[in-house]
Amino acid sequence: MTDLFQGPKGTRDFLPSAMAVRRYIEDAWRRVSTRYGFQEVDGPTFESLELYKVKSGDEIVSQLFSFTDRGGRDLALRPEFTPTVARMVAQLGGGLPKPIKWFAIPRCYRAEQPQKGRLREFIQWNVDFIGDSSLAADRECLSVCAALLFEMGLTADDFNISWNHRDLMAELLVGLGIRTDKLPDTFYVLDRLQKLNDSERDKLLVSREFLSSEQELLGLFASEMSKPKAEQLELNKRLSAPQVRDTYEKIMQLQDQLALPELAYNFQWDIGLVRGLAYYTGFVFEVADARGENRAVAGGGRYDKLIEILGGKPTPAVGFGMGDVVLEILLSERGLLPVKPLGGPDVFIINASENAGLTGLWASRLRRSTFDHERKITVQSGLRVEHSYKASKNIGKLLQEAAHSHARFALILAPDELERNVVKWRDMQSRTEIEWPVHQAETLIRAACGQTGG
Amino acid sequence: MTDLFQGPKGTRDFLPSAMAVRRYIEDAWRRVSTRYGFQEVDGPTFESLELYKVKSGDEIVSQLFSFTDRGGRDLALRPEFTPTVARMVAQLGGGLPKPIKWFAIPRCYRAEQPQKGRLREFIQWNVDFIGDSSLAADRECLSVCAALLFEMGLTADDFNISWNHRDLMAELLVGLGIRTDKLPDTFYVLDRLQKLNDSERDKLLVSREFLSSEQELLGLFASEMSKPKAEQLELNKRLSAPQVRDTYEKIMQLQDQLALPELAYNFQWDIGLVRGLAYYTGFVFEVADARGENRAVAGGGRYDKLIEILGGKPTPAVGFGMGDVVLEILLSERGLLPVKPLGGPDVFIINASENAGLTGLWASRLRRSTFDHERKITVQSGLRVEHSYKASKNIGKLLQEAAHSHARFALILAPDELERNVVKWRDMQSRTEIEWPVHQAETLIRAACGQTGG
Repeated sequence: MTDLFQGPKGTRDFLPSAMAVRRYIEDAWRRVSTRYGFQEVDGPTFESLELYKVKSGDEIVSQLFSFTDRGGRDLALRPEFTPTVARMVAQLGGGLPKPIKWFAIPRCYRAEQPQKGRLREFIQWNVDFIGDSSLAADRECLSVCAALLFEMGLTADDFNISWNHRDLMAELLVGLGIRTDKLPDTFYVLDRLQKLNDSERDKLLVSREFLSSEQELLGLFASEMSKPKAEQLELNKRLSAPQVRDTYEKIMQLQDQLALPELAYNFQWDIGLVRGLAYYTGFVFEVADARGENRAVAGGGRYDKLIEILGGKPTPAVGFGMGDVVLEILLSERGLLPVKPLGGPDVFIINASENAGLTGLWASRLRRSTFDHERKITVQSGLRVEHSYKASKNIGKLLQEAAHSHARFALILAPDELERNVVKWRDMQSRTEIEWPVHQAETLIRAACGQTGG
Repeated sequence: MTDLFQGPKGTRDFLPSAMAVRRYIEDAWRRVSTRYGFQEVDGPTFESLELYKVKSGDEIVSQLFSFTDRGGRDLALRPEFTPTVARMVAQLGGGLPKPIKWFAIPRCYRAEQPQKGRLREFIQWNVDFIGDSSLAADRECLSVCAALLFEMGLTADDFNISWNHRDLMAELLVGLGIRTDKLPDTFYVLDRLQKLNDSERDKLLVSREFLSSEQELLGLFASEMSKPKAEQLELNKRLSAPQVRDTYEKIMQLQDQLALPELAYNFQWDIGLVRGLAYYTGFVFEVADARGENRAVAGGGRYDKLIEILGGKPTPAVGFGMGDVVLEILLSERGLLPVKPLGGPDVFIINASENAGLTGLWASRLRRSTFDHERKITVQSGLRVEHSYKASKNIGKLLQEAAHSHARFALILAPDELERNVVKWRDMQSRTEIEWPVHQAETLIRAACGQTGG
């Protein structure tokens, strides 16, 4: 006996109960996407390393699981799905009718330190609206994202959506005194501002060679953003200054145009929202848990240049991702995960006869579907059937096993009844039993389980 | 503009139509597994490299995509799922009630040369029956495997199942004159025998240092196996020799016990069947296309030692895998893939009014589900709704777009009707239209789409 093998750090084993929760979430993602007219796609689990280096940003690149194939090509496990979507659209060129509305449910990989809500392997719902630069596309992304959260039983009190706009934000920052060539550094700093304490922040500002006036402005941002909106008096004063008034008004207009009726009060512009991914161009948003640790549940934005950067035609695009790990924590904390996700069989076969072969015979007969070879479709589906794998012929014990499996019905094959050419049929809930002639039993069983004639 | 990025060699992009086929296959796998009482599980996409080196066999190890994480741990993308299942069971120890009946639908990875039916990334249905050493478990694996093929419209004429037994085969080979210490080499050679021409075969036999009597026997196997069963006269003579008669009779008994009624005539013992995986211990089987290129659709067998080798308690187990690539080719060649897998929306909204915002308002209203917060379940599901993303108000053109989307109904918001507080409802098939009062429209629309009151 060797040492016990372990699963890799930051990954999960999905036993049946965990898998049922995963299917519950994935089914909801698929259902809501389809309802909004998005079609499912997928791509390879790994892509060329270069694809991520182009425009995903330093943080993601530093967390790649990368490797080399036998042909010497550098590959990486996908840390996110947007580069794959953009590559696919770039390759297909103008061949697809616009708008392209795609969703995917890929597994993604990031070599970061595992912690609550963050694993090295996770599943991400990815929704992309491509070929439309209008606000209607941005709004539809917000709407399908919120619809998923409502679908799972969350209410508008459970989450906040903050948004920002990369271009308008750049305009605003320049108006407030940031030098144009310091904008990338400023975005980098803003993205980390609330995660740092004062001295870490000051150190970062100095290391990035900001002027003291710029340092003062970013310091003000940090202290104001830690306050509730209504108390950000100093920030509001700056935003009403003449040199930025036009930009700020554009932002407030956008707020009105983007806000969906169902989201009105928990949808807010957030001057501190940047989003780490380097390919975002305009509108960006993030959905966070409104209570507790304020974790990000979903996030996304416009990436109007990425498809062109990857060699395709200029094509506007907007999309977002939602990870399974944080969503599951949120649903679990709110008591919204289904309690009994695993259903039992339709029929549990109890064979108390001398003929052990009868069990398998009845099981495969009842599990069988009817395929219509003319129409090439399954016209009558098989039943969910289980039986004991013990040699016991004790009907009492076998009925206990049937009850334990949560079966709806039991089919009892007992010697005396078989002699009279009948089987017993038991409703496990009501504990009532009737007898059926063997030659009619399959039809009657299928009818009892809700099937009409094949 | 940079060069166009490509997806990695041997991988696939799943556009909506390809994804629909993948879902069609995956749904059938899941449905049939559940019907047989198997529960879904999954594990990490990568495992420690060592897990595969233990017992998967040289061929698989030579095809691993391996890499090192930041902690210096050697990892590999899973080439198959059985080692993960065995690791999970070993870790859980005796904690799970037996038998354990699990299935999984993992993506797997092998760095082999891409060719028809073989890709570097594929999806594999994996079914495992653990904790039961009886023939009932072997039979159930055969039965669920065949049930899947029948479910997809294939008949017993479309595939053959060959089987063998590792231990009995060893007994037989020793009886026929193979030295015990040459058994592993003999299995290796048998596995390749039919893929080689005569001179390649002779070269292999010499390189593995077989005695001339052993070479003669394996040469006989090769020439006999290329003939139909009924013409393998020389082989049958050897199998009836006194020193192997008992073993051969055990095999013939097993043939009777394993053969399921639904498989009787296409289920055959195959002396040449070995299966490459090093962990198989007893019964092994393979399902092959009965026509054309005779490709393997599925294969599996008993691995009664693997869980113990990985550090767990001694636990018998049997299972099999079926890949999506060969199955899809087979279904496609038989004309059994669904022709029109993508369904259209329930409702296409046509907004010819001045109020552009109405489109989104109606769309999100109809797409909305009703969640019962008492019972914590969705009690009424949203509808599948689509609309145009063009600014057009031309009802004729928009109706064309609705028809193109395969919508069942169109909801028409036109200025004159809205003035009278009504909307138009059009059945796209029959081209009939009626008017509904705005305030009752949602209820009437949901009813028309088959929903009863929420």
